[in-house]
Amino acid sequence: MKIAIIGVTGSVGKEMLNCIDKLKIKFTELKLYASENSKNKIIKFMSKDYKLKTVNSETFNDLDVALFAIDSDLSKKYYEYAKNSKCLIIDNSSAFRMNPNIPLVIPEINYHMINENTKLIANPNCSTILLLLSLSKIYEKYGINRIIVSTYQAASGAGIKGMNELNNQYKEFSNGNIKSTKEFGRQYVNNIFSHNSAIDLDNGYNQEELKMINETKKILNNNKINISATCIRVPVLRAHCESINITLDRKASYENFISCLSSTKGIELVDDRINNKFPEPIDASNKFDVLVGRVRKDLGQTEDLGYELFISGDQILKGAALNAVQILKYVKDNLNV
Amino acid sequence: MKIAIIGVTGSVGKEMLNCIDKLKIKFTELKLYASENSKNKIIKFMSKDYKLKTVNSETFNDLDVALFAIDSDLSKKYYEYAKNSKCLIIDNSSAFRMNPNIPLVIPEINYHMINENTKLIANPNCSTILLLLSLSKIYEKYGINRIIVSTYQAASGAGIKGMNELNNQYKEFSNGNIKSTKEFGRQYVNNIFSHNSAIDLDNGYNQEELKMINETKKILNNNKINISATCIRVPVLRAHCESINITLDRKASYENFISCLSSTKGIELVDDRINNKFPEPIDASNKFDVLVGRVRKDLGQTEDLGYELFISGDQILKGAALNAVQILKYVKDNLNV
Repeated sequence: MKIAIIGVTGSVGKEMLNCIDKLKIKFTELKLYASENSKNKIIKFMSKDYKLKTVNSETFNDLDVALFAIDSDLSKKYYEYAKNSKCLIIDNSSAFRMNPNIPLVIPEINYHMINENTKLIANPNCSTILLLLSLSKIYEKYGINRIIVSTYQAASGAGIKGMNELNNQYKEFSNGNIKSTKEFGRQYVNNIFSHNSAIDLDNGYNQEELKMINETKKILNNNKINISATCIRVPVLRAHCESINITLDRKASYENFISCLSSTKGIELVDDRINNKFPEPIDASNKFDVLVGRVRKDLGQTEDLGYELFISGDQILKGAALNAVQILKYVKDNLNV
Repeated sequence: MKIAIIGVTGSVGKEMLNCIDKLKIKFTELKLYASENSKNKIIKFMSKDYKLKTVNSETFNDLDVALFAIDSDLSKKYYEYAKNSKCLIIDNSSAFRMNPNIPLVIPEINYHMINENTKLIANPNCSTILLLLSLSKIYEKYGINRIIVSTYQAASGAGIKGMNELNNQYKEFSNGNIKSTKEFGRQYVNNIFSHNSAIDLDNGYNQEELKMINETKKILNNNKINISATCIRVPVLRAHCESINITLDRKASYENFISCLSSTKGIELVDDRINNKFPEPIDASNKFDVLVGRVRKDLGQTEDLGYELFISGDQILKGAALNAVQILKYVKDNLNV
């Protein structure tokens, strides 16, 4: 299998490379692509030097699978180059996610959407992946008809530039003068703010919230689910958190609810009431598993239908790079690529 | 009127003094109390020097109103000294809040709970005040049957020690080695964590969440309201934020909802969709008004019954000191103290 990462110098691209190693993805050839700025630079990977290339209209003719870790506009442009080749694209951008013909995949939930004719697979939004992975078994077993989620999102969602800006502000704040505000347009350290994506002027939701809402319906193949989201950035470099309130279709006792979470692949229960130890971004950073805790019955609901959870997951890993490489692994193991 | 502040060197006590000035509370005598450590220290207020005193069993015999900005245990102890005097106590601790005989007051909502026989008034929890003040007119006009709230709470809730610890960690983080973890027991900067109050081992809620739930029912005099809360600390020195999802009893169009918020005393609408400018802690800090924004219909609800809001308010001011001094002002203006 000849594979490529397009955009390997970004925060997600770098971790895709790392995940290819960690998930022991076998390949006959690996090609790494970046922008003109990085052309011919060398990246060392598994004791081998890789010279960075730039994409052109012929790039995809000699590849089996390409992982896109680039912005939406570039994804659209490069897919035009790729679509008549035999190369399968796994795209991390939002460009194709809501296209009804393109599978939007979290492998633990809906890998069956991929088949031998699939040419392009979309990787969901990071906050959506963390939310739905955590709820996947609960949804399967008890059904969920309502989700109300508030996020606590890290700088990493805005890429390396976003993380650098927060890091700069940490230093500047200690010196008493914040100057690095190019990415977020405001003080980030010692502050929180509504997610910096564009607002839909009609309904007041920002694009991050609408992604969570719309992608959830598509991934669960359920247009009836009532979901609302509020997306907020907090001064954390990496790993998002989410406060989640759900209403089940069918009653679950607390014990059964916990047992169902314990059997959920890809999550780790961190729910120590005695020691007040619950999911935190510093613990979730650089972890494949999503941490899930603060699990409790919603005191505002009288029956065993309402639950509260608080989760933290590495936005760059399961929220992006890991999910994409897990899709690659599924494709490799199950389809004739 | 002879008034006193008990605990004037703490973060809330200091701001009580400030609010007495800003609200132009007239007094014939002002006495300031602190712990043994601060005895005889001088505080300058309105161009006058005040020597700090310590409380004893006779302290309250010569006072009309005392504002308590001390912890629950001390509040209970000092109330024993005060209860047979004519001195009215306004207590900021949680010691008496849920006592059915003690009014728990947000002046904009239920000042009528105070009457000439009142000897002790409890100031609600900071997160509860910010929540209910923001919703006060909406509740009055449309009714609310469900509240789901997730908080983004500042270090100031843990007093000066909490704020100092975060400030120390800002410096330590820049130097790469976090050592100041006495108050919160963990890394605070570049992290978030579940509120550090004790957890109820039966239901999994922490004390901060239970305060929000129980105090809301008492203040609104409504045991039927379905409310759940998740309380999280974020690395912000001052001013809490809350993501609030509500379900109304009676439909409200978006325009009427906004107009009702605009007429709510004590809040300021900061809801600029075009410029992505919404409530932020750095803007709410040191402000009397609570900032309210991200107002939108809940996309997960089909009728005009569900709304989302995001608020930010100074936890030390309206969340504590200002509310207490507003109670004092009401008492002074309306009762024969």
